[in-house]
Order: sequence, then C-alpha cells, then structure tokens
Amino acid sequence: MSDVFPIAQLCGCLMRCPLEELPALLSHAEVDMVEWRLDAFSETHGVKNTIKGLAALSSRDRRPVVATSRLKRDGGVFAGSEPERLDLLKRAVLAGAEWIDLEDDLDMELYRYFQSSGAGLIVSYHDCSGTPSASYLHRKMEQMSGTGAKVIKIATFAASPEDNLTVLELIPFGKRELEKDVVAFCMGRKGRWSRAACLILGSPWSYVPLPGQTPAAPGQMTPSEMRSLMELLG
Amino acid sequence: MSDVFPIAQLCGCLMRCPLEELPALLSHAEVDMVEWRLDAFSETHGVKNTIKGLAALSSRDRRPVVATSRLKRDGGVFAGSEPERLDLLKRAVLAGAEWIDLEDDLDMELYRYFQSSGAGLIVSYHDCSGTPSASYLHRKMEQMSGTGAKVIKIATFAASPEDNLTVLELIPFGKRELEKDVVAFCMGRKGRWSRAACLILGSPWSYVPLPGQTPAAPGQMTPSEMRSLMELLG
Repeated sequence: MSDVFPIAQLCGCLMRCPLEELPALLSHAEVDMVEWRLDAFSETHGVKNTIKGLAALSSRDRRPVVATSRLKRDGGVFAGSEPERLDLLKRAVLAGAEWIDLEDDLDMELYRYFQSSGAGLIVSYHDCSGTPSASYLHRKMEQMSGTGAKVIKIATFAASPEDNLTVLELIPFGKRELEKDVVAFCMGRKGRWSRAACLILGSPWSYVPLPGQTPAAPGQMTPSEMRSLMELLG
Repeated sequence: MSDVFPIAQLCGCLMRCPLEELPALLSHAEVDMVEWRLDAFSETHGVKNTIKGLAALSSRDRRPVVATSRLKRDGGVFAGSEPERLDLLKRAVLAGAEWIDLEDDLDMELYRYFQSSGAGLIVSYHDCSGTPSASYLHRKMEQMSGTGAKVIKIATFAASPEDNLTVLELIPFGKRELEKDVVAFCMGRKGRWSRAACLILGSPWSYVPLPGQTPAAPGQMTPSEMRSLMELLG
C-alpha cells in the first residue's frame, strides 16, 4: 500500500490450539505471517509440550513466524520465570522462527544475543492503560532504536480518538528520524481503525487473530475485515 | 451508528442535474445533508436558471442544504464575477439553505451579513496542491475562527500518507483550542481514508458524491463505501 512496503502484510496471532493443528495454523492462507504467542500457548500446554511443539517450525510450507512470549504487564499471560520465558524464545529462534519480539526494557546483552541469532529483532513497547505524549514516545523510540531493533513496535490503549493520531505519527517519525520500520497502532475499541491506518502509513504488518483464534488484544479485526477495509481505503 | 460516530453525517455533493431532478436529489435517502455546488450547477444552467432552481429549497421533505459556490483556485468552476457569485449565495440563503460555505479570505462584512442571515456559517480553506505545516494550519484556523464561523472546513491535497495525520489533528485542535467544529480531511488518492477517519475524530460531516453525480473532489468515496467503512471501523 505504501511505496516503502509494496505488500502490506497481515500477521495472524496464534494463541492456543491442539498440538496437531499447529502445522495448519502456521501455514494459514488468510495471513502473510504468524505471531506465535508462546505465552498463551504454554499456558495451555505447559512449557515442555510447547518446546516439543516448536518442531512445527521445521515445516517447509509455513508462513514466516514471529516468536513472542508476552508478560502480564504487556497484555500477555506468561506464568513462568523470566529465565524460562527467555529460554523458550531462544528455542523458538533455534527451531527456525524468523522474527523475535522482545520488550523494550531488557538487558542489552539479550538484544545482542538475538541479533546474532539471525532472527529479525522486533523491540516492542506496550501501554495497555493509555497513550503517553508524543514527546515521551519519541524519546522511548530513540532508546529502542539503540537496541539494534529491525522493527520497532508501539501499541498503546486509545482512550480518545486522537490518541490514534499520536501513535500513527510514530510510523513516519521512525522512518524519518531513526531509519526504522515501525508497527504502531492503538488497542481498544477506539483504536480499531488504527490497525488498518498503520498499514497505509507504512507499517510493514498489522496484527489480526488467526481464524478460529480469540483476539490477542482488544480491537483486533478479522483478516477478512482487514482485507475489506484495505480495499475500501486503498 | 455506534457512539464512535455520535453525529456523523454524510453530506452529498450535488454538482449538476436537470432542473426537474432537483427535488429528488435534495431529498436523497442515502445522505443526511446536501452540498449544492452552485458553481458547477450554474456552469451548466447559467446563473438565471440556477436562481430559478433555488425554488426547490422551499420543499418540505428535503435534506438540510449547504450553499457553496467554489472559485477555481479552490477546486471549483464558478465562471462569473465575484458580485455574481456572492449574489447567488445570498439568494440561496434567502431561499432557505441552512448552511453557507465561504472561503477564508473574504471581507469581514460578508461573514457578518451571512451570520445575521440565520444560516450556519462554514468558513473553508482549500489547498489543492499540497498540505501546509501544522503550525501554518493552526494559525490559519485561529484567523478563520475570528470570522464567527460555526464550522471550520480544511481540505488539502495529500502528497504523502502522513499529510492526513497533520490535517486530521486539526479536528481535536479546533475543538480544544477554538471551541469550533471542524471538517478536515485530505483530497486525492492518498487522502481517501481521511474522509472516513475525520468522522471518527469528530467532524460533524464528510462529503460524498450524491449517487449518479461525478465526485466533487478527487478521493471522494460513494455513500455506500462510506457506510461500509464506518461499519467496519465502528
């Protein structure tokens, strides 16, 4: 849709499924890539079985995969310890995940580890209760840029319609000032439209629930709703 | 409509039609109000016949009407003299038009005349070639606010996706800083989505072509496209 990313991508969130359904969901035709929410998945299956499930990443036919294991404060459900969480993410990358999503406040050493692992590093900031000021978010992004992130992700809760403008502006800001690709949108009912608008503004992808999955965050549209929107807006 | 669009209205643009079709178009079920583009209409019918046509404003069943006669520099086609243009607008208000749209650089006396006429005053600024900076547009709106406008309209050409953000931000700016309702959106292909987003941000209406009419400006969506969008976004 934008000149920078000729193909806007839908990233389907995989939360929970029976182990045997993994291959089908990881290669789902309605999305261009899959975010495997290992926090939700391991809540259902336990960490050991989730590690076994990572073998599904060796399939040839699947979509590119983002390995994510979200903490509670960022809207996730990971219940184990921090070493367990990081171990699971490392295993996902070793098993073949193309992207790794890490929060913005981890040790620099970890960013370096994952950068050298060959996976694309997404560094993400979440505010599930509101939207900070533009200047706060700009400073935050400058710090995040120092992690060596390939993509910066910002997701905040829209308390008002104009919060979307604050957050969407981060996409051209990141491109112009930091030379970074930025996925930035608002969560919640009032943020719904920003999930489509972010693609127009140059975000490389936007998140949707994989068909049959519960939405990973409030305000997500289904893949077919997103496609209808993109057609109407394009 | 959801409460995301508390008073969102579709304003259908009436450009040209046979005189006898005026009553049907002025009461069209697919729009909430009608902008009668007297510049386009008088280009087809001449000023005298357009004045005769204003009698259609006496119909009881019609939608609220905005009387507009746009100059060439603002994307319009009015070919007559400035006194002729203003005379036609005055006659439209006398004939019952509820709203009058005037450019932002006219004599203060004229704004006063139309304010006292009982019609709602819309003061509008157009830039058909690009989008000025946010600070320029803020200053422009402060001046426009001094005309006594009930609604401020800003329409600029989107040369880039982020121009939409600059212009959409004017809606909360006008509400917060000037206590004015603002219709603000971008023209052109890259501005298409701002015509729906402006309603979410609080614009009291957005412009669509009346069914069967040529779009009044580049990027306009049909009423049914706008309704589909509002449903998907709401």
